[in-house]
Amino acid sequence: MDIKKEGVALYHTVKEKLHEMIEEGKYLPGQQFPTESDLCEKFSVSRTTIRLALNQLKLEGHIYQVQGKGTFVSMPKLEQSVAPYRSFKDHLQGRGQQLESKVLEFTVISADKRLAKTLQIAEQDAVFRIERIRYADEIPLLFSITYIPWKITPGLTKEECSGSLYALIKDKFSIELSHCMESMEPILIDEAISKHLNVPIGAPSFLLNTITYSNSHIPLEYSHEIIRGDRAKFTFERKL
Amino acid sequence: MDIKKEGVALYHTVKEKLHEMIEEGKYLPGQQFPTESDLCEKFSVSRTTIRLALNQLKLEGHIYQVQGKGTFVSMPKLEQSVAPYRSFKDHLQGRGQQLESKVLEFTVISADKRLAKTLQIAEQDAVFRIERIRYADEIPLLFSITYIPWKITPGLTKEECSGSLYALIKDKFSIELSHCMESMEPILIDEAISKHLNVPIGAPSFLLNTITYSNSHIPLEYSHEIIRGDRAKFTFERKL
Repeated sequence: MDIKKEGVALYHTVKEKLHEMIEEGKYLPGQQFPTESDLCEKFSVSRTTIRLALNQLKLEGHIYQVQGKGTFVSMPKLEQSVAPYRSFKDHLQGRGQQLESKVLEFTVISADKRLAKTLQIAEQDAVFRIERIRYADEIPLLFSITYIPWKITPGLTKEECSGSLYALIKDKFSIELSHCMESMEPILIDEAISKHLNVPIGAPSFLLNTITYSNSHIPLEYSHEIIRGDRAKFTFERKL
Repeated sequence: MDIKKEGVALYHTVKEKLHEMIEEGKYLPGQQFPTESDLCEKFSVSRTTIRLALNQLKLEGHIYQVQGKGTFVSMPKLEQSVAPYRSFKDHLQGRGQQLESKVLEFTVISADKRLAKTLQIAEQDAVFRIERIRYADEIPLLFSITYIPWKITPGLTKEECSGSLYALIKDKFSIELSHCMESMEPILIDEAISKHLNVPIGAPSFLLNTITYSNSHIPLEYSHEIIRGDRAKFTFERKL
C-alpha cells in the first residue's frame, strides 16, 4: 500500500488510512482487527509506527483491545444532535433501547460559594448532590453529578433518581422547565472516572456543564456530565 | 485547607479545588501560580498528589508552564455558541480582534473513494486541499484541512485562501451557501498537530467535521478542524 507523508508524521497517515478503512466498512464493528505484524507488512512501515497508529485509534475509540484475545473494531458512536435537538435517549429509543441510570451517591450538601452563585441560592443552603452513571446498551456512556436545591425538590429520595430528573421535577414537583444553558469542553478521563466508565485513564471525553431554568428563570439544577468520547459524538445543522 | 475525599481520588479533589479558585478569580489570567511546595503545604498532601493535580489542570488548559519561569494561569476560553449561532470570529470581533489565517499547504489532489462520496463527485475528480492554521490573539486556535471540488472554485489560488472561504465562495464564485452539517468529537493532540498548534502531545481537543451545502444541496466543501481544548469551548441554549 502506498503511504505518502504529506508533511505529517507517518503514523498519523497510517492511522488516518486505517480509520478510513473502518469507516468504509472494510473492518466491521466487533470484528477482529489485523495484528501488528500483518499491518507492518501491509503498509511497509516499522512496528513502532504501527503501534503509534493503533494507540491513537484506540484512544479515539475506533478500536479496543481484549486482553489475550486481540484488537477489535468498536461500535459506531451514539449521536446527540444539538440543533435540531435529538438526545442520546431519543437516539436509543429509535432503535428500541433505553438509557439506564445507576445512582452511585445521593447526599445533601451545604452550598459553597460557587454552587450558591450558580443556583442563585444562599451559601449554606441545602442542595441535593446526585452522582450517577448512565448506560446505553448496558455499557457506561456517561458519569454525571447533578445539584438540585432542596427547596426545588424537598424530600427527594435516592430511589426517585434512577430515571429522568427532568420528568421528576415536572411531574412530581409540578415545575415547568423552560430552557437550559450548556457548555462543552474536551477533557481527559482521570483515574476516578476511568473506573466508573471503564475506559483507560487519558482517553478523550466531553465535559458537558448544564444549568436548567424554570419558566420563571429560576435555576432548577446544575450538572456536570463526563461523556465517553469513544461512544458519543454531537452533531448540529446550521443555516448559513 | 480541608480536603475531603468524597469517594474520588485525592488529586482529583485538589484539582477541582484549584480549578474553583481560578474560576473565582483568586488566581488571575497571566498571573504566576503557586509552586508545588506552596501547594503541598496549603493542602497538606504529598508532592505526588500535587503533581497529578497540576498535570490535570495543565492538560485541561487552565494553567500553563513556561520553561524556567514557572506556572501561570491561562486566559479564559474563546466561546463558539452553537445555538443561537455565534462564531469564534464574532466572539473575537466583539472585542476588536481578528481571526487570522495562515495557509500551510495548498494542493490539488485526486478524490479518493471516501472524499468522492462525501463531496458527491466522481473518484479521481480534482479537489483543492487547503491546510491552514487559524490564530486568535496571535496564538494558534485551530488546525484545519478543507477540501473543495475544483469545479466549485475553478482556478482557486493559495493567496485567496488566507481569509474566509465561505466569503470567497459566495463573493468570487457567486454561489449561495445554504447550510452545513457539523459533527463534534473529542480527540487527543498527536505529534504532528502538537507542533502546528504549539500544545503538548495528548492534550484534549475538539475534532469538528463540517460539510457545507449550496442552496441547490450540492456539497461545496468538506473540512476537519482540530480546535485547542485549552483555548475554546462550545455553548448552546436549548428550549425544554
